[in-house]
Amino acid sequence: MQMVKEAVKKIQTRKAKIGIIGMGYVGAALADLVTEKRFETTGFVTRQERADRINERKTTHLRATTNPSDLKKQDVILICVQTPVDESKLPDLRFLTAASEQVANNLHPGQLVIVESSIATGTTRNVVLPILMKSGLKPDVDFFLAFSPERVDPGNKDVALGQIPKVVAGLDTNSHILVKTFYEQIMEKVVPVSSLETAEMVKLFENTFRLINISLVNELAAYAKTWDIDMWEIVNAAATKPFGFMPHYPSPGIGGHCIPVDPFYLLDDAKKRGVNLELIEASGRINDAQPKKVVERTFEILERRPIQTTFGTDTYSELPHALMGLKGGKSTSRSKPKILLLGLTYKPDVDDVRESPALKIWDLFLAEGCEVSYHDPLIPQYREAESKPLTHETLAAHDMIVLVTNHSSIDYDLLAKAGKKILDTRHVFANENKPSHIYGL
Amino acid sequence: MQMVKEAVKKIQTRKAKIGIIGMGYVGAALADLVTEKRFETTGFVTRQERADRINERKTTHLRATTNPSDLKKQDVILICVQTPVDESKLPDLRFLTAASEQVANNLHPGQLVIVESSIATGTTRNVVLPILMKSGLKPDVDFFLAFSPERVDPGNKDVALGQIPKVVAGLDTNSHILVKTFYEQIMEKVVPVSSLETAEMVKLFENTFRLINISLVNELAAYAKTWDIDMWEIVNAAATKPFGFMPHYPSPGIGGHCIPVDPFYLLDDAKKRGVNLELIEASGRINDAQPKKVVERTFEILERRPIQTTFGTDTYSELPHALMGLKGGKSTSRSKPKILLLGLTYKPDVDDVRESPALKIWDLFLAEGCEVSYHDPLIPQYREAESKPLTHETLAAHDMIVLVTNHSSIDYDLLAKAGKKILDTRHVFANENKPSHIYGL
Repeated sequence: MQMVKEAVKKIQTRKAKIGIIGMGYVGAALADLVTEKRFETTGFVTRQERADRINERKTTHLRATTNPSDLKKQDVILICVQTPVDESKLPDLRFLTAASEQVANNLHPGQLVIVESSIATGTTRNVVLPILMKSGLKPDVDFFLAFSPERVDPGNKDVALGQIPKVVAGLDTNSHILVKTFYEQIMEKVVPVSSLETAEMVKLFENTFRLINISLVNELAAYAKTWDIDMWEIVNAAATKPFGFMPHYPSPGIGGHCIPVDPFYLLDDAKKRGVNLELIEASGRINDAQPKKVVERTFEILERRPIQTTFGTDTYSELPHALMGLKGGKSTSRSKPKILLLGLTYKPDVDDVRESPALKIWDLFLAEGCEVSYHDPLIPQYREAESKPLTHETLAAHDMIVLVTNHSSIDYDLLAKAGKKILDTRHVFANENKPSHIYGL
Repeated sequence: MQMVKEAVKKIQTRKAKIGIIGMGYVGAALADLVTEKRFETTGFVTRQERADRINERKTTHLRATTNPSDLKKQDVILICVQTPVDESKLPDLRFLTAASEQVANNLHPGQLVIVESSIATGTTRNVVLPILMKSGLKPDVDFFLAFSPERVDPGNKDVALGQIPKVVAGLDTNSHILVKTFYEQIMEKVVPVSSLETAEMVKLFENTFRLINISLVNELAAYAKTWDIDMWEIVNAAATKPFGFMPHYPSPGIGGHCIPVDPFYLLDDAKKRGVNLELIEASGRINDAQPKKVVERTFEILERRPIQTTFGTDTYSELPHALMGLKGGKSTSRSKPKILLLGLTYKPDVDDVRESPALKIWDLFLAEGCEVSYHDPLIPQYREAESKPLTHETLAAHDMIVLVTNHSSIDYDLLAKAGKKILDTRHVFANENKPSHIYGL
């Protein structure tokens, strides 16, 4: 009990030292918050180059290191490593277990360990806890364990991270008190829930909500197209309803580290428990098919047929299969279409290409025998290619411009004036005043 | 042109006479709004008894009639008849075509006909218009046709109907001007969209959004239960996210005239057009299975096994099949469980049982050999049964109370004090302070 009281006091007086494992977009954003509150903070990274870059900035109260044994000096440890899915959409916990091993090897009495990474229900208790217990220390007595899902929204300028309510849960009462106390120092609102598993599922549910609703809009957009109806107009009109509705818009596909990942953590665990999550399965299929629709639509606008006959419009085959089928394709005798992709990142104004539909679209165009270049002001280089400058000359050198990600820095006036055919997958150009060379999905 | 100008002026000066076909919850709510604005209004109903009841109220500017030939005297005709689905979830347009025939038989130059009923994309143009043209009159020249989906939310006390933005679309420019002018007189905000089909689909989309999200929560609740997690706690914690989320709650099933109906108008039409709407199909299955879960859970709490072995938990068989299977069941030698259903209506504080899950639950209990009674203060009689008074004696006379619809007038204190087992499908009793005789789904 005495140890818990001391730990609480140390946190409340800002004397607790904070270690953050993983300084990606989540760890870095939390580091900003924690150092703002004048906690001494250490970021744990794997590459020395990354540590050097953080240390060069000379942020007050923040330093970075590649040395896990510095974990010994911390009072609170936040695990913010990535938890992606593999090619079969199964959870890939390598980074999480590696981080947990590091913590276990350096664990000492009184430490609070908080997992922030999105993980399947039960993972903190059934994966992280057993690793920490290999230290020989006892939970609730020697060390404390909590889960608190990150809600960082990259690029969101409306809500500061500190204003986003923080869901927290502890393994036991002491852990619960400590994680709540810690986040009360840095967040405006803390939302305690009754178990680790509840907190884990909250985060997965939030992103599943988004996956399902984006998939619904994409599914209905395909139907609306048969009526020549603009799905964007539908969504905007529906959004005038003052209750019971929330708008989501059609897209070339979902991307990023959350929406295409978290629902599949739920799905995988549900399968193991004999529960069928039909809506997630269907949504996965729908979204995997979106990049293919972009490519199909491009060929339609170019008035060319794709070389592959695997391009049906009424079935959703999963992308990896589609690609396998496509990769064997032969090019035709016609000249190769030259495609310029505008925007590679998974959403506007972030420099993150993880799970971005643009990459799948790129692959599909290659498989169709196209030449692909790109312009993205935030991604100077990718796949041995360089971002082309967005100029009249660049546009003129391509057969078709495919706008995948609507960065605010793209010169849309230039596109509006270009004579080149443009596929606008993001509805940047509203239907009413869209020049005739600009097409919708 | 002259005729359109005159019609606009007549509407703007409130001299236009308004006819409303169908005085159900939509027609009656619109009649209230229109008469408030001092338009002379006639409600067209089929039963004299209903007409008498409306006329007895002596509402200023409103009278009701069963005489379709009075449609001749109207300047604006609102079609507000019900458009249900049949047992196979296919659109049942009998009421709409009958109303359209009545209008056609009485159509005269200058009239504006507005369809308010929820219908599949294309129905105004492809079903209503051809019927009206049998009058020999020409659209855009002699008469005008528009679609404007009703957004009446029975029981909603937060937003008055006149404050809910009204989506409108005309068959042609004149119809568009007229429908916009008409609704500008009675609604705070009018949202014109570019085609009849767009307006039709807006409404179907709004309710499809709700179906999908309620289904998602119900699907995830089944999964959460395997972890002994409370889905309500998950939803409430997720709802603290200030962006990208909207809460929907678990339920014993969806009901009413919109959510269980509208998505299937979309689904039916999409099938005809070769488009697969997987999410709607899956949601339909999930929701059809909810009443069965209520019955299963009841037997679990009673520590009795249902007599039927068709009650699997991992597959969603559609209700009609389940019922077919169940109806042949034999009762066991044990005494019949006596079930009291609390609340029959599809949502709290409305007196409407259409598509209510309570009715399906009732049927399933009967098929399981139970004796079923009910208490619903808004439904004094149903199926030759009478609402039982909610007293200690009534509770004592049953083995199990199943709370299906949480009317605000139900005496929840009485339930909390009752010794009888209660299945609370609506989370009226929050988990923290729930007496041990009250169970969740």
